[in-house]
Amino acid sequence: MAPHGDESDGGGEAAIVIEAEKRPISTIVIVIAMQTEALPLVNKFQLTEDLDSVFPKGVPWVRYHGVYKELNINIIWPGKDFTFGVDSVGTVSASLVTYAAIQTLQPDLIINAGTAGGFKAKGACIGDVFLASSAAFHDRRIPIPVFDLYGVGLRQAFSTPNLLKELSLKAGKLSTGDSLDMSQQDEASIIANDATIKDMEGAAVAYVADLLKVPTIFVKAVTDIVDGDKPTAEEFLQNLASVTAALDKAVTEVVDFINGKCISEL
Amino acid sequence: MAPHGDESDGGGEAAIVIEAEKRPISTIVIVIAMQTEALPLVNKFQLTEDLDSVFPKGVPWVRYHGVYKELNINIIWPGKDFTFGVDSVGTVSASLVTYAAIQTLQPDLIINAGTAGGFKAKGACIGDVFLASSAAFHDRRIPIPVFDLYGVGLRQAFSTPNLLKELSLKAGKLSTGDSLDMSQQDEASIIANDATIKDMEGAAVAYVADLLKVPTIFVKAVTDIVDGDKPTAEEFLQNLASVTAALDKAVTEVVDFINGKCISEL
Repeated sequence: MAPHGDESDGGGEAAIVIEAEKRPISTIVIVIAMQTEALPLVNKFQLTEDLDSVFPKGVPWVRYHGVYKELNINIIWPGKDFTFGVDSVGTVSASLVTYAAIQTLQPDLIINAGTAGGFKAKGACIGDVFLASSAAFHDRRIPIPVFDLYGVGLRQAFSTPNLLKELSLKAGKLSTGDSLDMSQQDEASIIANDATIKDMEGAAVAYVADLLKVPTIFVKAVTDIVDGDKPTAEEFLQNLASVTAALDKAVTEVVDFINGKCISEL
Repeated sequence: MAPHGDESDGGGEAAIVIEAEKRPISTIVIVIAMQTEALPLVNKFQLTEDLDSVFPKGVPWVRYHGVYKELNINIIWPGKDFTFGVDSVGTVSASLVTYAAIQTLQPDLIINAGTAGGFKAKGACIGDVFLASSAAFHDRRIPIPVFDLYGVGLRQAFSTPNLLKELSLKAGKLSTGDSLDMSQQDEASIIANDATIKDMEGAAVAYVADLLKVPTIFVKAVTDIVDGDKPTAEEFLQNLASVTAALDKAVTEVVDFINGKCISEL
């Protein structure tokens, strides 16, 4: 039996998409790489840890979930690495949890939230919160025609003009790499990416969400100035706690704005 | 009802593992990043493409499968990127297909096969085929204590002393990064990793397989000499076809050796 009368498969699919755009957002997944960044939001939204995990046995991934206003909120944190005991940061873990969360939870929207480095030359200051307009990689150099563009992997964030206007967030391009520091080659690629902020997960989340067609936005708070005088690691650790407060405030405002709205109203 | 009499859960689990080690390997997954590397093996093992994909709608991942001797063989190729039309190389795609293949196919063994750069200073020559003893990342620099070790992410390959002795393969350590070229920072990390060969997927496959506890080996054929005179991309493209023949010969020999054996006999 055809679920959409005499429509073709293609037309039926398009109709489902349009229908989804018209109903209020119901389930969101917030991908956060570090526990320090995640826990204040877990408390704020009064989420509980999923002890009977939706994820396979053996992975350290943690899901916090609950109902906040009219939203089913899932904060997905890749957890502590079993071998080393540190947060499972970076693109591999981020892509895996994004994939598994989409497969398991079928969210209407993904929010990748976290801290980032900022470039003062592009107007970033410590504590600024950015809504990234796009995400690309800066450490996947493949100097073969077309492979070079695949490596950069530029993807647009889901367009949210009303959200950007309503909240006092800055807009800027995000560049992603698996190193906390920045080599000369990274810097050249970041400049080519025209990036204002630099993180370790965004472009990987964008890649997976694009594969599986889930709208995704990026909320990133600046912990360190990459083109400043202080060493990145030191500045990052110094500002992590205070900037996390700014991040959590912004994510809460974003979630409050999203509540009750359709995806097309963002 | 307890499936293992009065044994504790832990003991039961250990018993299952020992039992698995005693029965012949049944299902193998061969993760191969490039179509050029995969297709000769697809023909050799007379595999057919899985048109009713075990993977979610929207992903470009391709599974070729069939029965060869006493083995269920699955060659998993991450496919052509839908946007750029090139092979989906690199750690993000490799980790995703490894995860999805383990979840879907529950293999007894994973073989990550592919081409690699080799270091002549460590004894590598064009056309050499290596069985990697370990895999680590060289482009995940996180200069914070313990995070630095997480970034390197060193993992041992499944130990296969009999396989190594039987076939004329070289042994060496593998280092993985998402760039085809090599920056100074990459080089320093590769030297720290004591690597003889360099690829773009191995350590990511190792990471996921380790999370989900699937034994994994790495068969890598050298297409270019990284510490030689020729530009990597040029040498890689020049030798890809001929070295792929050596790779395929080696993978066939590995599969023939595996056939009928238990995992503990490798």
